[in-house]
Amino acid sequence: MTAQPLTDYSRMAVHTFTTKPWNLQQACENYASAGIPGITVWRNVIEDIGAEAAGAMIRKSGLEVAALCRGGFFPATDATQRQAAIDDNKLAIDQAAAIGAPMVVLVCGAVVGMPLEEARKQISDGIGACLDHARACNVQLAIEPLHPMYAADRSAVNTMGQARAICETLNDPLVGIALDVYHVWWDPDLSQEIKRAGEMGTLFAFHVCDWKPDTNHLLLDRGLMGEGCIDIRAIRSEVEAAGFRGWNEVEIFSQHHWEKEQRSWLSEIKRAYLDHV
Amino acid sequence: MTAQPLTDYSRMAVHTFTTKPWNLQQACENYASAGIPGITVWRNVIEDIGAEAAGAMIRKSGLEVAALCRGGFFPATDATQRQAAIDDNKLAIDQAAAIGAPMVVLVCGAVVGMPLEEARKQISDGIGACLDHARACNVQLAIEPLHPMYAADRSAVNTMGQARAICETLNDPLVGIALDVYHVWWDPDLSQEIKRAGEMGTLFAFHVCDWKPDTNHLLLDRGLMGEGCIDIRAIRSEVEAAGFRGWNEVEIFSQHHWEKEQRSWLSEIKRAYLDHV
Repeated sequence: MTAQPLTDYSRMAVHTFTTKPWNLQQACENYASAGIPGITVWRNVIEDIGAEAAGAMIRKSGLEVAALCRGGFFPATDATQRQAAIDDNKLAIDQAAAIGAPMVVLVCGAVVGMPLEEARKQISDGIGACLDHARACNVQLAIEPLHPMYAADRSAVNTMGQARAICETLNDPLVGIALDVYHVWWDPDLSQEIKRAGEMGTLFAFHVCDWKPDTNHLLLDRGLMGEGCIDIRAIRSEVEAAGFRGWNEVEIFSQHHWEKEQRSWLSEIKRAYLDHV
Repeated sequence: MTAQPLTDYSRMAVHTFTTKPWNLQQACENYASAGIPGITVWRNVIEDIGAEAAGAMIRKSGLEVAALCRGGFFPATDATQRQAAIDDNKLAIDQAAAIGAPMVVLVCGAVVGMPLEEARKQISDGIGACLDHARACNVQLAIEPLHPMYAADRSAVNTMGQARAICETLNDPLVGIALDVYHVWWDPDLSQEIKRAGEMGTLFAFHVCDWKPDTNHLLLDRGLMGEGCIDIRAIRSEVEAAGFRGWNEVEIFSQHHWEKEQRSWLSEIKRAYLDHV
């Protein structure tokens, strides 16, 4: 059954990358004054100011943090690089704790030329190596399956089923899945995997945007909800039927939309959120 | 076990679209004089001259036809369009018979806004409606699963598993699968589905090119074998272990490579074929 349309913004969060031209201060001020209660913080906007100051800034704005983006990129061809990736993920976990983010979203990584199976093993091992630290900080790790067009160099985890397999291997309540409609909408097993994630308690995050049939760039041409072909409300219905009660996070990378005045872009996002999520 | 490198061109076929600047006459002459025995004919190169004349031209060149590309595009929002698609596929079957192509490759289609499940049902029904005609003409129909990045408007069949499901539904020796490494290399179920296709006798065609991690266009930036990250030889090994003895078809859409002098482009292709297929 299709969920009712959303009538308010109480579960809306926006990724700072969605309004890339803004720094964290501008994002906090503008989201808060627009009545958007949630923010997902990308690490680029805390680089300059540090996680402590970022946390103070966000708390002052009254926003709640949905997640920190992003950790991951575990696979590498030598042990030193793999350890560096683990260390960087532990740092991300510290940063998440400092800004009040309940989870770190993982773009798991892939290495050109490395067999995908080997990359997946290194991903599972890498997440496993971060678990003690994540537990100490009380921060969840959300595996985000990425669209197969990113399998070469961004993520060897390309379906909900593969993300589930890693969750099953690690079998830790801190490890779950971030479902982004952009990456998984095409998957014939999507409905079934959402149900299983609900049963397993691994559905940690829900990201929305849209897939434009005339996509002109593999990274930076995502659509605003309603601009493309994804039945976002149908997927939200399934996610909620599976028990998800978290944020509806708007994550849009779009050169085209970033060229707009960002306050009016944020207004468009709010309208599209009620109309299409 | 990895297959031995290829040492000759006896199983090599080239898609006319790989050398798009050439008309059929030029493609036939140049492939034949380069010692390439096989050609896969795209319908655009026979539009002007007709299938009968095209068939005569190809026979005169001594080339063998691996396939006709392409039929498909079955889903549509009204019955008239769906019937038009079926009629066009029957025409493609006639054209295949006229040029001596043993099969028509199907890019199955999708409609923006139509649920993928509905599109898949229309695809299966559409292929089914062509079977009597295909049988009368002794032409096979090869479902080509397309990369999920084409799910919005080109094909709702995006994995070998989905193609198999349609083969199982129709259960006809004329219906099988065209495996293109570009579309399926990322699929965690690839090895298992190749084996099953071998057992079912549905592995009809094998297409090669490469996936470039820095792909800059969703359609027209495929890589020459070796330019990207696909372990083509490993996939050929699996395909051959599953019993495939057909053509290794080179199918590359690339604005970049089409801008080259096409004879030297063909020489590059031949080298890459021995080095990477």
